[in-house]
Formats: sequence, structure tokens, C-alpha cells
Amino acid sequence: MDVLVVNGPNLNSLGTREPEIYGSTTLADVEEGLATQGGAAGLDVACFQSNHEGEIIDKLYEAKRAGAKYVIINPGGFTHTSVALRDALAAVAIPFIEVHISNIHAREEFRRHSLLTDLAVGSIVGLGVYGYTLALDAVINRLGIWA
Amino acid sequence: MDVLVVNGPNLNSLGTREPEIYGSTTLADVEEGLATQGGAAGLDVACFQSNHEGEIIDKLYEAKRAGAKYVIINPGGFTHTSVALRDALAAVAIPFIEVHISNIHAREEFRRHSLLTDLAVGSIVGLGVYGYTLALDAVINRLGIWA
Amino acid sequence: MDVLVVNGPNLNSLGTREPEIYGSTTLADVEEGLATQGGAAGLDVACFQSNHEGEIIDKLYEAKRAGAKYVIINPGGFTHTSVALRDALAAVAIPFIEVHISNIHAREEFRRHSLLTDLAVGSIVGLGVYGYTLALDAVINRLGIWA
Amino acid sequence: MDVLVVNGPNLNSLGTREPEIYGSTTLADVEEGLATQGGAAGLDVACFQSNHEGEIIDKLYEAKRAGAKYVIINPGGFTHTSVALRDALAAVAIPFIEVHISNIHAREEFRRHSLLTDLAVGSIVGLGVYGYTLALDAVINRLGIWA
Amino acid sequence: MDVLVVNGPNLNSLGTREPEIYGSTTLADVEEGLATQGGAAGLDVACFQSNHEGEIIDKLYEAKRAGAKYVIINPGGFTHTSVALRDALAAVAIPFIEVHISNIHAREEFRRHSLLTDLAVGSIVGLGVYGYTLALDAVINRLGIWA
Amino acid sequence: MDVLVVNGPNLNSLGTREPEIYGSTTLADVEEGLATQGGAAGLDVACFQSNHEGEIIDKLYEAKRAGAKYVIINPGGFTHTSVALRDALAAVAIPFIEVHISNIHAREEFRRHSLLTDLAVGSIVGLGVYGYTLALDAVINRLGIWA
Amino acid sequence: MDVLVVNGPNLNSLGTREPEIYGSTTLADVEEGLATQGGAAGLDVACFQSNHEGEIIDKLYEAKRAGAKYVIINPGGFTHTSVALRDALAAVAIPFIEVHISNIHAREEFRRHSLLTDLAVGSIVGLGVYGYTLALDAVINRLGIWA
Amino acid sequence: MDVLVVNGPNLNSLGTREPEIYGSTTLADVEEGLATQGGAAGLDVACFQSNHEGEIIDKLYEAKRAGAKYVIINPGGFTHTSVALRDALAAVAIPFIEVHISNIHAREEFRRHSLLTDLAVGSIVGLGVYGYTLALDAVINRLGIWA
Amino acid sequence: MDVLVVNGPNLNSLGTREPEIYGSTTLADVEEGLATQGGAAGLDVACFQSNHEGEIIDKLYEAKRAGAKYVIINPGGFTHTSVALRDALAAVAIPFIEVHISNIHAREEFRRHSLLTDLAVGSIVGLGVYGYTLALDAVINRLGIWA
Amino acid sequence: MDVLVVNGPNLNSLGTREPEIYGSTTLADVEEGLATQGGAAGLDVACFQSNHEGEIIDKLYEAKRAGAKYVIINPGGFTHTSVALRDALAAVAIPFIEVHISNIHAREEFRRHSLLTDLAVGSIVGLGVYGYTLALDAVINRLGIWA
Amino acid sequence: MDVLVVNGPNLNSLGTREPEIYGSTTLADVEEGLATQGGAAGLDVACFQSNHEGEIIDKLYEAKRAGAKYVIINPGGFTHTSVALRDALAAVAIPFIEVHISNIHAREEFRRHSLLTDLAVGSIVGLGVYGYTLALDAVINRLGIWA
Amino acid sequence: MDVLVVNGPNLNSLGTREPEIYGSTTLADVEEGLATQGGAAGLDVACFQSNHEGEIIDKLYEAKRAGAKYVIINPGGFTHTSVALRDALAAVAIPFIEVHISNIHAREEFRRHSLLTDLAVGSIVGLGVYGYTLALDAVINRLGIWA
Repeated sequence: MDVLVVNGPNLNSLGTREPEIYGSTTLADVEEGLATQGGAAGLDVACFQSNHEGEIIDKLYEAKRAGAKYVIINPGGFTHTSVALRDALAAVAIPFIEVHISNIHAREEFRRHSLLTDLAVGSIVGLGVYGYTLALDAVINRLGIWA
Repeated sequence: MDVLVVNGPNLNSLGTREPEIYGSTTLADVEEGLATQGGAAGLDVACFQSNHEGEIIDKLYEAKRAGAKYVIINPGGFTHTSVALRDALAAVAIPFIEVHISNIHAREEFRRHSLLTDLAVGSIVGLGVYGYTLALDAVINRLGIWA
Repeated sequence: MDVLVVNGPNLNSLGTREPEIYGSTTLADVEEGLATQGGAAGLDVACFQSNHEGEIIDKLYEAKRAGAKYVIINPGGFTHTSVALRDALAAVAIPFIEVHISNIHAREEFRRHSLLTDLAVGSIVGLGVYGYTLALDAVINRLGIWA
Repeated sequence: MDVLVVNGPNLNSLGTREPEIYGSTTLADVEEGLATQGGAAGLDVACFQSNHEGEIIDKLYEAKRAGAKYVIINPGGFTHTSVALRDALAAVAIPFIEVHISNIHAREEFRRHSLLTDLAVGSIVGLGVYGYTLALDAVINRLGIWA
Repeated sequence: MDVLVVNGPNLNSLGTREPEIYGSTTLADVEEGLATQGGAAGLDVACFQSNHEGEIIDKLYEAKRAGAKYVIINPGGFTHTSVALRDALAAVAIPFIEVHISNIHAREEFRRHSLLTDLAVGSIVGLGVYGYTLALDAVINRLGIWA
Repeated sequence: MDVLVVNGPNLNSLGTREPEIYGSTTLADVEEGLATQGGAAGLDVACFQSNHEGEIIDKLYEAKRAGAKYVIINPGGFTHTSVALRDALAAVAIPFIEVHISNIHAREEFRRHSLLTDLAVGSIVGLGVYGYTLALDAVINRLGIWA
Repeated sequence: MDVLVVNGPNLNSLGTREPEIYGSTTLADVEEGLATQGGAAGLDVACFQSNHEGEIIDKLYEAKRAGAKYVIINPGGFTHTSVALRDALAAVAIPFIEVHISNIHAREEFRRHSLLTDLAVGSIVGLGVYGYTLALDAVINRLGIWA
Repeated sequence: MDVLVVNGPNLNSLGTREPEIYGSTTLADVEEGLATQGGAAGLDVACFQSNHEGEIIDKLYEAKRAGAKYVIINPGGFTHTSVALRDALAAVAIPFIEVHISNIHAREEFRRHSLLTDLAVGSIVGLGVYGYTLALDAVINRLGIWA
Repeated sequence: MDVLVVNGPNLNSLGTREPEIYGSTTLADVEEGLATQGGAAGLDVACFQSNHEGEIIDKLYEAKRAGAKYVIINPGGFTHTSVALRDALAAVAIPFIEVHISNIHAREEFRRHSLLTDLAVGSIVGLGVYGYTLALDAVINRLGIWA
Repeated sequence: MDVLVVNGPNLNSLGTREPEIYGSTTLADVEEGLATQGGAAGLDVACFQSNHEGEIIDKLYEAKRAGAKYVIINPGGFTHTSVALRDALAAVAIPFIEVHISNIHAREEFRRHSLLTDLAVGSIVGLGVYGYTLALDAVINRLGIWA
Repeated sequence: MDVLVVNGPNLNSLGTREPEIYGSTTLADVEEGLATQGGAAGLDVACFQSNHEGEIIDKLYEAKRAGAKYVIINPGGFTHTSVALRDALAAVAIPFIEVHISNIHAREEFRRHSLLTDLAVGSIVGLGVYGYTLALDAVINRLGIWA
Repeated sequence: MDVLVVNGPNLNSLGTREPEIYGSTTLADVEEGLATQGGAAGLDVACFQSNHEGEIIDKLYEAKRAGAKYVIINPGGFTHTSVALRDALAAVAIPFIEVHISNIHAREEFRRHSLLTDLAVGSIVGLGVYGYTLALDAVINRLGIWA
């Protein structure tokens, strides 16, 4: 495993919920696309989604043991509430990029503060599911592949 | 499944903890009563309790697939901390009524703010376990049964 | 007088204002329904509406003298601003249930804090005028009638 | 009644209190001037002052029934504290202009926030009693008289 | 009228509510005592109680016209919410002393801020109904009677 | 120059942007109208618009040297952020009236605080471009022309 | 020692600083007057002033050992900053009355919060040095002397 | 089970992460040491670690049923975010001591507030893994063993 | 002009300041790269840098007239302070993507709030100058070129 | 002197005040126990109590000159208010452990913030006077005695 | 250029505005005095004033290129609002001293927070135009001239 | 005594603590230098340092009696916490200049607010011990010596 893509709570419903807004791209589509994009750059991309905070933390330790070089994470609602997830990302010390599909800064006030971003390499916000593609593109760039 | 009744963390201890305060009604009693009350109105009422945020979110998606028309939820401590639960309730878009057994506004300051209520149809607070009965009564009323 | 139902400022306009939203139920309809519902349980239900804070406070003292056992109150805009009303409810020490027709938690920020709720037995919010019915149902239940 | 001019608490003392500051124009003078100014434009201008919040609310409902087209209101101290007045103005849905004789933004901190202004068509602040004249001028302009 | 003693909302219940705490001194007793105390110093002491904010404001203007030299006021719940009362006290410009029977600083947080005190000559808090006696004593002292 | 009318950033787009909302009155129309209105009262009205904070400050000093008696200013976005503009208005000490076309109190939270208003004679808010006319009317009134 | 009168920092300058404002009554005058007033009621009144927080705390323990029944304290600047003084007053558990010569609520914002008042029997604020006299009068009244 | 030792999220990585900082003591070492220390005092010490909030809550109820007399808990990131964990600790009502290996007060601002500490017997912070030893020592002392 | 790339204050120093941190890529390099990248997709990319708020606002109106389809903007320090720039972006109504080279969420507190982001399509933060490349890539994607 | 034990204001009353709550252990008992415990580990333990902030600061400099290796401090009320004490602890740079007998996090809000803790090695809170014993145990452990 | 002296908005009016307060020293006088003072120490002192934020930022980059060793800056109103100026000062990394003629801490609340001071070597506030002289003296001292 | 130089808590350690940072200048050196600098201008400069708040307050009254014309004060940690010191400076009414050796605005948040500065003539911050020299220079300048 070179890159772990983590999707947090409620991202399981992607593509089936309100398709006129979010489009018909499902999480499976996104994950398949990322695997292909990574593969073309010689990277093994593993994907994981869970509505359970503990499972995501466990997965990050597993990624550490598997030698993952980068994490791309859309933490969903945990963005604003999970110190435990923050601590896990700090503990495994794998560089990570934070992705949000919608523009969280144009939504409720409580979504404007992230407990994770100051630990991140950077973040991509509001560019739809294409944000995952850009994030993986940035990872490839930072690893010096096709630099 | 017509109506899903969700009880969050620590409500498993209902009826056995401090019975002089909370009475000897257990969660099983409450759930049995709601099933009977719903049945009389021709509604299939399913009940679920968990101390795990992820399991409750998973359950809500399951209720969505099963065609549930209403959710009655006592989110316990998740009321004040779970953006993920809020997002799940928004995603499944099943109308829901929030119930709290005790008067949360007469307790600690941090219990006065709910992350869920502004999405709810309404809420019933402080009327003991009878609040569940009233909530189901409201559901029956809103569904136009016996209107 | 067994139960006093108090409606605060602007609730006089119920049913005639924006009926496509609030329905055509007038305050008179609500009050008549509550009298009937109470009567069936052997309770004398008195109703009172005023746009004047002082009149409501005076009424509460009158209810005290008349031996009222419960108050059901929709304090309207006084909910958020009247310490005097709070003090009156504390002084007469009649148990009361707070009702709000709309979901005040889904409206302006300043409506999310009530000066009264921590003194109340409980509250019913956002369930329309049916909230009054539920509140009286709870009173009947708590008085041990038809328990 | 075409236009209702409402003056809130303490404006009864206008012209007799500290005339070296506020001038010797009394509230009666102001009201007479507005009636004349309105009359010249074919408008029936009714004036009302009260130190009682409830009376002002009652008056607004009366104006609604009388078909008033505009309200000009100097809410005095109720500006900052009365949610009930706000709700009444929203309920009657008569467009209104808020007037303050002094520059409330140059006084105590608590006078800088108004509970009403976001519902108003607009406001005129700090231009003395001439602000009432300007407000009525704006009403005439908006009604397309002499446009 | 030399001195006006104003008691705000809920002070009508003094002496009959919870006598084991507040004693059996009624508001009538207090007012009679003040009249006697004032009379001995040659002062005409008028007393007034109301649960209506507007009536208290009206009374203050009446006291102004009657030439009152001092006001002693226990504003009850209006202490924390009434800008209109503050403005009236500023408008009539009669020096006043604020009295609170209980120690408001040892109660709910929202009772620690008064909208009136910075305009007052001073305040006496927490010394029971004897606080009125002390306040009148201070008035006598400040008027140079028996100095 | 008797009166300087200043329009801040983005007011250059008036009349061409969203005419169905703001009408088709351009800034040139407004300025021409003010010159005519001022001329009829014997006043030389100069108008100035800039998107540059420094240019507006320079202009105010120029107006001071030219003996301007009043400033009418719509500071646009600088209302909420420019201490330098505040200081310039204080330094030149020309009395000024603040105008806002839209009701800034009904928009985003950050628009509710102005750094300028407490220095102003007064303000006119939310009455459309007619607010400029009213402001100039107030200037004429205050200068004792046609008083 | 029956009553201890404590004056905190800077009260040593009373009477000599700005006599046109504070009068020419010195702290020595005040203390002498209190001794006489107390003596007439058969009370031994001891007075103490210090600019040192520690000395005041030590004095309170001494008063405890000496059997003092009441403390009258003007804590000066320690009012707003000294948790240690608060703890000492709580530890010795002698009932106390807080006195402030000036109206601290009409001064800087940071003077409006006291760390002591919620422990006090009550407080007397803004009535000049006569406030000490009233406080001792209240002590005499509460001890049942001349009741 | 006499004593339950709970370690929250990310404490699984103890001893293997950054050993130059945290030392090479693993969680297994800590747990073994506590079992030995407890055994010498005749106490059965059970240890539990999880990254899942729900599992920890379930465990606390299990400990209650097993008759545990004390809980020692290092809640990790849940310290600052989990009302559900707080409620569980309150529900089981087993006295508990909170331990933090690092000095959380010298880290990020959001770590300075704990949702649990006010329910705890006490807390030990910043003394490394030796803090667990001290906590168990305190439990032994409080149980009157070797007192 | 199809796309306007705006760089705000201090970005002129890119590449020459602290090259060991920011690399030796100058703003000229970045702008040249974007022109090439855009050209390959058939887009005319114009670049503009200024330390003057007013010049940037003027430029945006110019871009509007020139028919620009997208703006990519790194507003530098104006991000947090310029309501005027916000208003300009809203007025021209060209969709825009916000880019920050460093991770602004890991810097000073005042950098965590942007006055612009809620109007943006989205933002890319912390990915170095490669963020501009990603932003233009997203523009190309959203315009349906090479979709 | 190897270890200095400092007790701040009001701890002189330990053991004599409310013994049913705090036990009958006096400060002298505590100090004697610590001397014995230290002596067994070959450490010279000096104890100091004062109600004077300045004396405690002076003592810390004396301890520095005497070569003290550790400080154990219960700062009492100075915990929350003394920047001077914080600076002294920073200046002498002797590692220190903070002890509080009661659980300060379960008391008044203002006791939850300490000005010292972020400089401390760690803290022990709420474990009664046994907290001193644990603190000295930790010192012995950290000095490698009996490790 | 060895030292750049920057004066921000409105300082052009120095000496001509309110000379009875600020004295008759003009900015030209100040600048001439600094050139002389600097010349005596062999330093080339350049002075610059502008009401335009962008021009000041441009000037700082010019000073960097010219090899300036120190900046003395009175940022006027930009002190409290300009992140762009802060970034420029950080980017050019020339050590700077902040000067304010008046005591900004004794003026409006919003003047008490500076966005620049934490980057400065130090600041001199409230000592009139003599503050510039002291600042240049400090520069001479720090450069080791006449040390 | 013409000028009193006061140094607050912990400044006794100057020059011996961390000399690589603060230099080897001791407080004695500073005081000797100030005496010499003052003497050359014909001023008698007295110096005083204490870790005791009460002693500093006492000293200020002594300086008042001795006719001191200026105070130069580095209040150390009392800057942020001592209302009593503020009151003393106001009471003695000797003009004073506040000095801080380090740049307090670049340190912890709680050091950014001073309780004294708004009363001061001005302040000099962050310029090392040379700040005392500059302060005395300013005093000499303001007294018109060598003007």
C-alpha cells in the first residue's frame, strides 16, 4: 500500500443521494478512478470508508505498518469533532491531504473549524469529487514521480 | 419498518439505574410499549439502541432502505457532539422527532446546545419516558392516521 | 381552574396569518379543543392570551390563588427576554410545560436560548398546534388521570 | 389610516426635557408636522405613543386591520430588547422605517444592536426630529406619489 | 411627594411566599415602615408596585411632575432586561438608589449584570427588606436632614 | 466646493449590475441629481468615487482645503474595515452623513458593525439611491437653507 | 473584637486626595465614627487598613481567633483580582458585608465583576463613606441589637 | 475485577512511537506492572484499550456488573469531546481517577478543557507512565489497604 | 481573456525570499507555467499582481468587461481584511477559486478566517505553487475541456 | 535543601477548618510526613507556607541559591491570578509539580484555569493530602532514587 | 539608505491639525530632525509618508533592495487592520520599531490590538513626536554606533 | 527625589539569569546608569525593586510625599493582574512611563493586556534594558531640561 484514501461517515451515500446536486458518481466510482490514476503512476492505492471513528483510527495504524507514503482523507463530520482522529494522524505521522467535496466554508458556522487541517500538508475544498483526483495528482507530484 | 426508534449511548441502563429517580421502566418496557402503540395505528415500529455512533449511522441508512417514514431519536450524549450523526440524519432525509427524558436545559451548560434540533421536525424534552409516547402520538397525527 | 393555558404576544394572530403555512386553526379553535380534551379528563382548563407581559404575570398569580395544578405556556417572544416572567413562574411554583409551535432551534440564533426552560417540567417544540394537545396529554398523565 | 407613526417609551418627554440639547420641538409638534406633510400628499397619518410594549403591539394589529400601508417607528428602548415587538412587526407585515433621533451608534455599546432593523425597509439615525420628516418623505417616494 | 419607592414585578408576593425564607414581612409592612421612617424626617414617601413595565415608566414621569427628590427602586426582573426603564430613569433625572432584597450576585449568572446601576447613586444588595430602610436612611442623609 | 459626496469601492457598478434589483439608475445619474438638488439650494456639490482607500483619504484632505461644509459618504466595504478612513474623517472634522443603499443590518453579520457611524452626524440605511437625496436634504436643512 | 472593618489598598489616601470630590473625611475619621457607632450598640469595632493582600488575609484569621461576629470590608482593587482573599473569607466563615465608596458599576468595565460578592451577605455601593455607617447599622440590625 | 484500567484511542502506540521521547515502555509493560502492583495489594486489576468510544462505554457497564471498585482512565482524545463517555462514567458511578501521560495543559488550547474531570475523584497529569503507578497507589490508599 | 490569475500583496517576492523554504520558483515562473498550461487547453490566461487593493478591484471589473470565465486568486493578506474585495468578487460574479501557497490553517489564528471563501467555488490550500496548477486544472475540468 | 514544598494562601488553616470534610490532618502533619518520606530517600525536604505572594517569590529565589532540585507547590488562590508567581517559577527554572487537595475542576468556573500548569512537570489534583505524598514519590522516581 | 522612516495614513496632517494639542511640529519638521540626528551618527535616513497601503508595501520592498538596516514605522490606522502590511514587514525581514505619537492604549478599544507589534523589535507609544527621536536613538544603539 | 524608578517582581534576577539572552547587565548596573544619566541632567533618581505588590504601592505614596515628578515603572507580572497598583498610580497622580524589556506582544496571549498603560504617559517595549535609558531621556525632555 502506497497511498491510503480514507472516507469518513456518510460518504457511503455518495452518488445515490441527491444526484442532481452531487452527480451520479458513486464512492465506488471515485475509488476505482483513484486506483487507476495511481496505478498509472506505479502507486498502489487502497481505499477505505467507515462511519466508525475507531475503525478509521485502526486503519491508519494498519497503513503505517504497511508502509503507506501518503494519506488522502475526507473526514466528513469527524473533521470538526474528533481529537482522537487528529491524534492518530499525528501518531502515524504519514503526510496527508484533506479533501472536502463541498465548500465547507459556505455552510454552517461549525463547519469552518477543522481539528485536522493544521497537521495536514494541505487541503482541497469545494471542487467536487474532482478534488480527490487533484489530491492524488499532488501526491504524485510530491513523490517526484513525473516531476 | 414504518418508524425507527433510536436510543443512543447509556440509554441501555434505563430503569435499572437510580429507579427512585427514573422509575423502574426499563428500555425494554419502553420499546414494547411503543410497538404496541404503533401496532394499534397499523405502524411497524422498530427499536434500536447502541453506544456506538457508527452503528447508529449505519442503522439510519438501513432504515432509509427499508422505507421508514419517521425516526424518533433520543441521541443521548451524541446530541451535543456528533456532526456525523447530524449529517446522517440530513442524508437519509427521514423526518425525525428528538426526545430527551430529562430536561436538558436544567442541567450542565454544554447540554443546552444540540447539533440536531434545527434539522428536526420538533423536540420533546423533560417529560420522562412518556415523551416517547407523545412523540409516537405526534407521528401518528402527522401521518394522518386517526387525524 | 385546574390547568391554565397561557399564550404570549402575537399568538392572537394564529390561523389568520399565512394560513398556507400555519393552517387555518385559530387560537379560538386551539383553546376550544383544549377545553374539550381537558373536560373529558375531568379538568377545568382556562385559557388566556395577552400581548402584555404584566397581564400574564398578574394572571399567573390569579391562577395560583385559584389553585391551578399545571400551566401550559407558549411565551412567544417573551421566551428570550423576560426575567420578570421567569420570576413569576418561579414565585407561583405551579409546574409548567413550555410549548412552541415552530421549531425555534431552526430559526434565528437569539431564539435558541430560553430564560424559562430550565424551570419547566419540560418542553414541546416544533410540532405545530398539536403540541398543545400533547402537552395537555402529558399533564393528564402526570396527574395520574387515566395513567 | 395610511401611515402609522409609532413612538416608543420615553418619547413622551420630547421637547420638555433638556431643550438646549433636543430643541423645544415637542412630540405634539412632530406629530402635527407629520400629519400636515402627509396630508399634502393625500395620506392619512395616524400617530401613537406609549410606554407599554403590549399597547404598541396591539396598535400594530389595529393598523393592519385598518389597512395601513407603512409604519414609521422610533422604538426607543424596545429597539434592543423586544423580541415580541419584532414578531409583531413581522406578523403584520407592513413595511416599516426605523427612526432614531440621536446617533445610537455613538452611545452605549448595548444600543448598537437592534432586534428590528433587519426586518425594516431601512433606517434613519442621528438627524434629529428632522429624521421623521425624511422618513415620511421616503414613504411618499416609495408609494409613487410625486415620484 | 418627596420620595418615590418603586417595586417591580413579583414583589407583590413578598411575605406570603416562602415565609420561612423571606420572613412574614409583607410589601404592605415595608411600605408602611418607610412612610413612618420618612415622616419622622419630614419627608412624604409614596410607594408603588407594578408588574407592568409601562406603568412604572409612567409613574416615574408623574413623580417628576410632582417634584420628587429621590427614587428608591427595586426593579425586580426588569433590572437585567429593560432599556426602557433605564431611559426613563435617565430622562426624569431624579437621583435614585437601587435595592435588591436577595444577593443577586450569588444567584444565576444573568442576574449579575444590571442595566440600571451605572446611572444610580448607589445600590444596596442582599440585606433583606432592611435594605429599604438603609436606602431611605441614605436619602435622608444626602438631603442634609439630620446630617 | 460646499458638499463632497464620496462613493467607495464597487459603487462604480451601480445601475449596470443587476438592474432588476437595483434599478437602472447609474452612479452618474445619482451624481447629476445631487448636483441639481444642491444647485437649487445654492450649494456646490462635488462627487467622487474610487476603489482605492488612499485616494478617498487624499480627497477628504483636498475637500478640507477647499472649505467643504459637509460630506455625504457611502463607504462601501470600507465601512467595516478601515480605521484609516475613520481617522481621516476625524482629522478633517467635516460633519458627515453616512449612506447605505441596501439595509446592511439585514445582510451578513460582519456588515452590522461600522467603524465610522459613531463619528457621523447620522446615517440613512436601506432606502435605495433615494437615501442620497434624503441626506442632501438633511444637509440643506442643517445649514439653515430653507429652514 | 466583635466587628472587624477592613480597608484594602489605596484607602489610606482617603480624605487627603481630591477633597473637592471625596470630601475631607479621612480614613481615621471614618474609623473613629464606626468605633463610636459600634460602642453605642455595645460592639467592639476594630479597624484595619493595608496595601498588602497577605496582611489582610492574616488579619482575617486573627479575627476568627478573636471571635469576630461580622466583617465589613472595602477590598479596593483586590475586589476584582484576589482569589486568595475570597478563599480566606470562605475559610474563616465570618459573615461579611462588602462596601464600595464609589459606584463601581459606573466606572471601568473590569470593575463590574467582584470575586467576593457572591459569598457576602450583601453589599452597599456608591453611597460614599456613609456606606460604612449603613453597613454597621445592618450588622447591628442582624445581630438583633435594637431590632 | 477490583480495578479497571482503561486506555483510550492511540494509546496502543505507546512505547513504539518516538521512544526517545516517550521511552520504550509499551502499553503491555504498563499493564503488566499495574497487575503486579495491584496483586501485591490483593487487588484484581483488569486492563482494556480501545480506539472505539462505544467499546469503552460497553466495558464500563461490564465493570459495573463485575463489581469494580475503581476505574483508572486515560481517555486520550475522548477527554475533550465525548459527552457519551462522561455520561457512562456518571451512570456506572464507579469512582475514577483520570491520568494523562503528557502535560495536556502545556499543549494545544483545546486540550485544556476536559469533559470528565469534574466527575473524577482527581487527576494526575504530566508525570509520564509513572502516573498510572501513582493512580493505583492512590486507589490502594483510598480503599484503606496498607493505609 | 478567459482566465484571470490574481496575486495579492507580497506575492511579488515569491522565489527570491527564503528559497530554501519556498523554492526558487518566482512569480514570473508561475505565471509563465499557467499561461502554457492554459494555452494547451485553448485558454487565454492573464496574470496580474498588485500590492494595492484598489488596483485589484479595478482589474476584476476589467476582467468582467473582457468576458473572463474564471478567476484564480491568491488574495494574500487581503483574505482576512478586505470586505471591498469580497464585494468586488460578488459584483463581477465570475466564478473563482482561492489558492494559498502555505497551509494558512497551521499559522496564526487570524489567518484561519477568510472573508472570501464562502463565495468561492472552492479553495486549494497548502500545496505550494503547485496549487495554482491544480486550480487551473480544475478550471479546465469545470469548463468541460478534456472532461 | 533538595526539595522545597510550598503552600500558598489559606493552607495554614488545614486540619482545623471543617475537619469532617478535610480530615484532622494539619499542615504540620503533612510537612512532617513529607520530611520523613524524603529522609528515607536521602532527600532534605524544606517546607514553607505563606499568605504573601512576595514571600513565596522570595523563597523560590532562595531555593535556587540553595540548589533545590525540585519544588512541590500548592499555590492556593494564586493558581489563577499570579503572573508574578508564574514568572518566578520560570526564572528559577527548578522543575516543579503542582498539587491541589480538592478537585478544582469540580468547583467554580474560574478555578479551572491555572496560570502555572503549562510550566509544570505535571499536576496531581483532587486526591486529598495524599497528593503531596504521591508528588514526592514522583520526585524520588524522577531523580532516579530507588528507580 | 540605512534607515527608512515610514508614516502611514493621516500623518500628513501633523502640525497643522489642532496645534494646541499636537503642537506646531509638522511632519516635515520631524523628518528633517531625524535626518540630522541620523546624519550625526553617519546614517542615511530616508522618510516616506502615504495614505495608500500599497505604496507603503512597495516602499518596503524598495528599502529591502536598497539595503536598509532598520525601519521605524508609525502605521497609523493600518496598525489594526492590515495583514498585508504585516506580511510585507515579515517578507522584507528588516528589523523595525513601531512608534505611536499618542497613547493608543488610552483610546478606543479597537486601537489596543496591533497586527504588527509581535513582529517588531519593540515599540514606543504615547511620548509624542519625541518618540521618533527615541526610536532612532535605539537604532543607533543597536547598530553599535556610539555604543 | 525627582524620579522614581520601580521594578516589579522577578526583575531582581536580571543579569544573572540566562545572560546569553538578557546580557550580563544586572539590575544594579541599570540603576547605577540611570542615577548617572539623571544626575547629569540635575535630577535625583531613586530606584526600588520588590516582589511584593504592597511594598510597591507603599513606595508610590512615599514618592508622592517626597515630591517626585515622574515615575518610570517596569511592573513585571503585576502589569496584567494588579488593579491595586493601577489605583495607586491613579491616586498619586504622578505621570509615569511604562517600560518592558522584552516585547510582551510577542509572548503569551495574557501578556498583551495591561491594566496600567491607559493611565501612562506612554510606554517603551521590547528594546532591552536600553528602554530605561530612553524612558529617562523622555522624562528629561518632557521636563524641559535641555529641550
